[in-house]
Amino acid sequence: MDGEIIMADEEKERGKDTNIVFVGNKPPMNYVTAVMALLNSTEFDEVTIKARGNAISRAVDAAEITRNRFVTEAEIKNIEIGTETIAREDGRTSNVSSIEICLCLKKNK
Amino acid sequence: MDGEIIMADEEKERGKDTNIVFVGNKPPMNYVTAVMALLNSTEFDEVTIKARGNAISRAVDAAEITRNRFVTEAEIKNIEIGTETIAREDGRTSNVSSIEICLCLKKNK
Repeated sequence: MDGEIIMADEEKERGKDTNIVFVGNKPPMNYVTAVMALLNSTEFDEVTIKARGNAISRAVDAAEITRNRFVTEAEIKNIEIGTETIAREDGRTSNVSSIEICLCLKKNK
Repeated sequence: MDGEIIMADEEKERGKDTNIVFVGNKPPMNYVTAVMALLNSTEFDEVTIKARGNAISRAVDAAEITRNRFVTEAEIKNIEIGTETIAREDGRTSNVSSIEICLCLKKNK
């Protein structure tokens, strides 16, 4: 539940006109539809899927389902992994892995 | 447990002198030490970390822990994601996401 709250805060911070989808603990299809909506909008021709910790596998699922089943003209532009330091409630910090998958529409669509 | 069996079979198939580490359900440090052993050997200057399904997050953890804490002269050469079709025992097939993270040693070490 904490993850969801952070996600919502980050989305607010960046405003609504963002092409970033944060993947949390919901079923992968929720994120697939979010990615599809952004790719099908006229505003963006690329979308970044972000996730941390255990949600990383789900982010890969969402990217793969999107490009294999629903938006076949989408391709993977770039994948980056990293480590983020997160402050816990008790004041300690812990490191968590992160991923950013950038999906873009092929030029010759 | 199925994942472990498949992993062991694949490792046998490719022989022992491989620079591929398959990540399964063990703690991340097990895979970090395997990657370190390969990178520190004279035989290889790059190692590929592979994982499927839920182990994908653990593969990212292993790569990040290796390059941030233990082998700081290692860098990420390439990351690929894909979908593999796996045959189940009941004859049906299911799709599972996969990741391949290639770590290499920087040239100016």
